[in-house]
Amino acid sequence: MMKASKRSQGVSYAIRDVILPAKELEKKGIEVLHLNIGDPNAYDFDTPQHIKDALYDAANKGYNGYAPSEGYLELRQAIVEREKKRNNVSYSPEDICITTGVTEGLQLLLNSSLDPNDELLIPGPTYPQYTLLTRFNDALPIPYRCIEEEGWQPDVDQIRKKISNRAKGIVIINPNNPTGALYSRKVIQEIVNIAGEYQVPVISDEIYDDLTFDGHQCATASLAKDVPVITFNGFSKVYLMPGWRIGYTMFHHQGELHEIQDAYMRIARSRLCASSVCQRACIQALRGPQDHIKQTNDKLRERRDFSYKRLNEIEGLSTAKPDGAFYIFPKIDAMSEGIWHDDKEFVLDLLHEAHVLTVNGSGFCTTFGKGHFRAVILPPLKTLEKAFDQVEQFMKKRLAKKVPIHR
Amino acid sequence: MMKASKRSQGVSYAIRDVILPAKELEKKGIEVLHLNIGDPNAYDFDTPQHIKDALYDAANKGYNGYAPSEGYLELRQAIVEREKKRNNVSYSPEDICITTGVTEGLQLLLNSSLDPNDELLIPGPTYPQYTLLTRFNDALPIPYRCIEEEGWQPDVDQIRKKISNRAKGIVIINPNNPTGALYSRKVIQEIVNIAGEYQVPVISDEIYDDLTFDGHQCATASLAKDVPVITFNGFSKVYLMPGWRIGYTMFHHQGELHEIQDAYMRIARSRLCASSVCQRACIQALRGPQDHIKQTNDKLRERRDFSYKRLNEIEGLSTAKPDGAFYIFPKIDAMSEGIWHDDKEFVLDLLHEAHVLTVNGSGFCTTFGKGHFRAVILPPLKTLEKAFDQVEQFMKKRLAKKVPIHR
Repeated sequence: MMKASKRSQGVSYAIRDVILPAKELEKKGIEVLHLNIGDPNAYDFDTPQHIKDALYDAANKGYNGYAPSEGYLELRQAIVEREKKRNNVSYSPEDICITTGVTEGLQLLLNSSLDPNDELLIPGPTYPQYTLLTRFNDALPIPYRCIEEEGWQPDVDQIRKKISNRAKGIVIINPNNPTGALYSRKVIQEIVNIAGEYQVPVISDEIYDDLTFDGHQCATASLAKDVPVITFNGFSKVYLMPGWRIGYTMFHHQGELHEIQDAYMRIARSRLCASSVCQRACIQALRGPQDHIKQTNDKLRERRDFSYKRLNEIEGLSTAKPDGAFYIFPKIDAMSEGIWHDDKEFVLDLLHEAHVLTVNGSGFCTTFGKGHFRAVILPPLKTLEKAFDQVEQFMKKRLAKKVPIHR
Repeated sequence: MMKASKRSQGVSYAIRDVILPAKELEKKGIEVLHLNIGDPNAYDFDTPQHIKDALYDAANKGYNGYAPSEGYLELRQAIVEREKKRNNVSYSPEDICITTGVTEGLQLLLNSSLDPNDELLIPGPTYPQYTLLTRFNDALPIPYRCIEEEGWQPDVDQIRKKISNRAKGIVIINPNNPTGALYSRKVIQEIVNIAGEYQVPVISDEIYDDLTFDGHQCATASLAKDVPVITFNGFSKVYLMPGWRIGYTMFHHQGELHEIQDAYMRIARSRLCASSVCQRACIQALRGPQDHIKQTNDKLRERRDFSYKRLNEIEGLSTAKPDGAFYIFPKIDAMSEGIWHDDKEFVLDLLHEAHVLTVNGSGFCTTFGKGHFRAVILPPLKTLEKAFDQVEQFMKKRLAKKVPIHR
């Protein structure tokens, strides 16, 4: 048997890895309630019609050849306008690169900035790609704690304690995946200040920026007077088109970032471009009606309120209240009963017994995510009701027995 | 200034890097004839209408969420059918993964199979990503000669001489980019045999498979009785939709490849999926009318015939005859006159003086590509006529002087 690379051996992606056992159940005719994937379009959300029309229009107008590697100028200009209007941050189109989702932007950035044994400060818990891609570049992900009791706000003191001269950046994800936390202005400012002291950029993932329920998301770049910020954003979540895979990377205070940005663009040229027709449609996403955003948030707020209330009613579980994105990250208090070895076992047990699919918290951080699970709050209330009822039955049953399961 | 990674420092992509100086000329109002990029849609080719309609249909039917990481089952089934029909090779859908162009497939494969100091046999000249991505994995690209006098067929003896126990695969690109060579059945069989002896897979890039002018392209997997073959293909070229970025990877005799395929899929899951709507349209690309392929080849054959004849008439240049894809790779015989230091200088001189943009051969292999340039044969005859007239004037002028240029 031909061997796989050593580098590949550590790669796993909990969010999609849990799908395989769920598929086995579904093959047997069992209905599984999917609370695992951050895909609004898998529920009762859909891409606004004018964006679909713009996609067809782009194909008919002949935008079917390769796009520029950095993305179409008109799209980058539309992003410049949005940033000025929403965040009062000034970019030039040259500081923006369109990518195949944020995933590719992250890959390009880490490939162009990380050397072996460099360190990257990463929230704990985090979106898994930050850890995976840091390791792929032979660098070290350094998770810093986010404080569950404070709605999963980053622990700034711990960032200060853990950062060293080997650090190449501080990652924040705001609103956060997997916790749904919306970061306070104060916390963001403090993180920016630390980055300034250590002369590293803040790497700010803002893909959920307009999906908030009570407050307003504050763009990191808007608080960074002279600290470089690299922002990831995209159309997947706010514009309800995750399958189209269009993201972008923005370089703020790019003077300091010139070398990294140059390397990023050289690698970007070698991979050609993000999808041409989908890019064209995104111009209309930004320039056309924005009504769907309020409608989405209204639906999500109701579902968040219900999920938060209902999960806290279930014995053995408790959860902080998410303020943005579409996730909730409950704590499995009952872990202390010794019923399950770990949260992965809990999630699989929940799947097999209650037919509710979630993602184990350790998949987002083995240190600060364990003992939790991530659920999406995307499904309609009726589905959420059903799912949480099944979770409740399951917890009652397991807590009544308190016998460790062995499979 | 924050430093870029060491790994990124060697990255350059000649095909797109030459665009920057061309843009400078265009800013001054100078018309540049672009013979640099392998994008049929930049000339008088366009995506068939039924594929565009299928794209819109997919968006309207709600295929806007994430696709499965391995791609939609229906698309993989359509590929299975094509492979059976065209090549008499049997795949199961599980052996196929849909990717964002061949580029991503190659990235996934090399990430999952190359360890530091491994070697990969690569044609000289080659599509640059093979060299770049091998180096990115800290492995060594080992270029083997392709024989210009034999229409750029691979030098099988040299493959045999250069292969070692550190080799992890033999790459072939057929039809070839940048030379346009269509490999003979005999040569492919010999390469398959060597791979069998060394127990490594053949990595076969067949993205141009149906674009041939006289002969029929022979799929490597169809000749490999018990040797593993990993084939890259996609819709960009044959279906005239390069901007849409849909490619695929196929694992043949996957028993031996199980570990690598497993690693490939684990990494593929972490990057989510290729564009959902573009994937759906590709189902119709395979299942709908195929008339455009003959039409494309008829146009390309005429342009190939003209380019081959005309370039060989120009003093100081000579070229082999391409049989597939849409490239020609002339030799700059006049390099021996000492007019230019290298082919990069030639290409820039040609751009600035004759306003014809090509790509330096050394961008495809510093050993076996130097002293050449790559041109596309995609433009209409009128454009090709004009371009080659300008090239001829340029060569006459330079050869009359025979004075080294200094800029």
